[in-house]
Amino acid sequence: MQRNLAIDGDRLWSTLEASAAIGRGPRGGLRRLTLTDDDKTMRDLFARWAQESGFTVRVDQLGNMFVRRDGTDNSLPPILIGSHLDTQAAGGRFDGILGVLGGLEILRTLADAHIATKRAIEVVNWTNEEGARFYPPMLSSLVFAGGESVAWAADRVDKDGLRLGDELARIGYRGAEPVGGRKLDAYFELHIEQGPKLDAAGVPVGIVTGGFPTRGMRIDVSGETAHVGPTPMQRRQNALVGASHVAIAVDDIGWRYSAGEGKTTAARLDLWPNLPGIISERASLFCDMRHPDQTMLEQMVLELETALPDCARRGRCRIEIAERWGFGGLQFDAELIALLREGASDLGHATMDILSEAGHDAYNMAAVCPTAMIFTPCKDGISHNEAESMTLADALPATNVLLRAVIAHANR
Amino acid sequence: MQRNLAIDGDRLWSTLEASAAIGRGPRGGLRRLTLTDDDKTMRDLFARWAQESGFTVRVDQLGNMFVRRDGTDNSLPPILIGSHLDTQAAGGRFDGILGVLGGLEILRTLADAHIATKRAIEVVNWTNEEGARFYPPMLSSLVFAGGESVAWAADRVDKDGLRLGDELARIGYRGAEPVGGRKLDAYFELHIEQGPKLDAAGVPVGIVTGGFPTRGMRIDVSGETAHVGPTPMQRRQNALVGASHVAIAVDDIGWRYSAGEGKTTAARLDLWPNLPGIISERASLFCDMRHPDQTMLEQMVLELETALPDCARRGRCRIEIAERWGFGGLQFDAELIALLREGASDLGHATMDILSEAGHDAYNMAAVCPTAMIFTPCKDGISHNEAESMTLADALPATNVLLRAVIAHANR
Repeated sequence: MQRNLAIDGDRLWSTLEASAAIGRGPRGGLRRLTLTDDDKTMRDLFARWAQESGFTVRVDQLGNMFVRRDGTDNSLPPILIGSHLDTQAAGGRFDGILGVLGGLEILRTLADAHIATKRAIEVVNWTNEEGARFYPPMLSSLVFAGGESVAWAADRVDKDGLRLGDELARIGYRGAEPVGGRKLDAYFELHIEQGPKLDAAGVPVGIVTGGFPTRGMRIDVSGETAHVGPTPMQRRQNALVGASHVAIAVDDIGWRYSAGEGKTTAARLDLWPNLPGIISERASLFCDMRHPDQTMLEQMVLELETALPDCARRGRCRIEIAERWGFGGLQFDAELIALLREGASDLGHATMDILSEAGHDAYNMAAVCPTAMIFTPCKDGISHNEAESMTLADALPATNVLLRAVIAHANR
Repeated sequence: MQRNLAIDGDRLWSTLEASAAIGRGPRGGLRRLTLTDDDKTMRDLFARWAQESGFTVRVDQLGNMFVRRDGTDNSLPPILIGSHLDTQAAGGRFDGILGVLGGLEILRTLADAHIATKRAIEVVNWTNEEGARFYPPMLSSLVFAGGESVAWAADRVDKDGLRLGDELARIGYRGAEPVGGRKLDAYFELHIEQGPKLDAAGVPVGIVTGGFPTRGMRIDVSGETAHVGPTPMQRRQNALVGASHVAIAVDDIGWRYSAGEGKTTAARLDLWPNLPGIISERASLFCDMRHPDQTMLEQMVLELETALPDCARRGRCRIEIAERWGFGGLQFDAELIALLREGASDLGHATMDILSEAGHDAYNMAAVCPTAMIFTPCKDGISHNEAESMTLADALPATNVLLRAVIAHANR
């Protein structure tokens, strides 16, 4: 490998800046929900950049975009690098985007240096990673990994009742290729940490060894509509009050486990009718629990289950866990991790082993092929907030480490 | 007065049944939000009934409908009877509707019996009493009474951003007449109790002496968006958790004052972004406090104000009272109340003096002219619920008492 090979930082930064102008949020971040017009504009630009650099672009039936630079032996399964170009409702300019545009920059660097790799390298933009518009998050990689069907994904609806499949077609990104079902050599994902550890320690590269075990629940609360005036307190069953007791129980558990890095979130609450003159009959609370230790996580879940009857009694409502989900709790591939460490060592970058606390498409991909992730710092660990921030100096080390690891793996 | 004069119960019931078929809710009640197509259908039917009976129909600039039967001296201010034909999102078949269709039945009874009254009698259908679509409730009577302007009311928007003024025009009920500004002799409103007292006591007629003092607040909670995963508990400011603490504080106060008939409601909670993967930054909680004793109500409000700093500390958010409102706390007109008592006595009906715990257009009208209300029982006091129920036998006594009071007052 050429000792001085490095990505073009200015070019990478210019693509990140161009992305930051598409779907700009009111406070300088991004609000580029998946399959909106802004998402289409960004996808079109990404495809144009790829084609101008001589790479091919393919789109599958869920709008996942694959930018490919051929290898010298295209009969071998390719290496995949990627992340997502969609953002949260109040998102930042780098979450996901760095992973896709960093991947493109790696391909461009190889092309400029006329470096042929044995295996092809592809860069993917996954559809609807955030889950901010269509539930659940990481939806397309889940289908790619065989966890759900294309038809199931296409039928997801947003809050206005629009189908994911219809929105794909509307913006011209319902491709013909099947989703998944092909061999991959490895999957790498470059991402900002979204937490404060690297930034606080001043370490430029996070070697992601795996993901936090994560459990989620939708908790349904059932009360009864009634007039807010004459109805005696004794006859009320206010679903909003019941849900408030659950939200606080969820939050309290996070605090009890916070010393061991446990976290809980009362994240979303849907109410009906949710009007000023009438007591609400239904509430659905979406909550999220994470802990690096699976056993502790199970204990947190159990504590919430144990707290619910008291929430029901105090809120005078019926409460049930209506849906459960989980992700994380996995270890990334040892060989890929070793390659990343080697790249960092070659370049003289300090590294920190870190568990990802956020969900990533890499979790789904780990079921398909050897998978690893590499993190950059982000300022104060702020994420899913328009104030999310990083510098080019934050981005360069991990991106160059990934470049080396990808070349090494592509030439095996 | 003719001793045996009485309304036609079957005819009254048939109009209530016809109304119950327009905008039927999934559980047999009504979901007829103001200025929807269903509201237009109901308004058209009400107007047709009035015209077929020989009464005139006028519509003012806020869609308030006035059905008039002339008197023998039309230079005198008329008597007004009325209520509203709109319903809650999950409403009943009688709340408001009995007051309008009972008023129509009184006019029809007078016409059938060829009874001339000195003063004209009008029946009003107020636009947007419930406030279930456009905030605040009792909006049009407020404007009628001079409390706000027509332009202000027309600019209210529903949750989809549709303007009240545009929706009035869309269904053909933006009339030319000015709203209010004319002399009225008296205002009577017939209504179901919406509470359990008359039904529990087996008393057929409630003489409403006044209204519960009521205070409302919109409490705004400010946190910060962040990722639900990596963000340490110590860095979180979850507006949903802050609002949950407030909702419980509100509910607790209601329980502390419940022996003295105090009531509180955490009624509506709006959150943003309210998505599963991101901590919510903003919450607005609408709460409502009622007590028959104004001093006690002020004490309840003070207790909530005192609790807010602790809610802010526990929820790690900023909390402020962003808006306050109030209604009730008034006494109805002694002379009209005496007339209602006299009517009940003539007909041999037991009565109960009662304070209205719900808001009514009558509260606004009390600022304009002598005003009184009369209640019928409703089953178990259930209201703002599709299960709201009453029988014709529940409706007849109060409607006939009102008939007598109206005739007496119209002939003064």
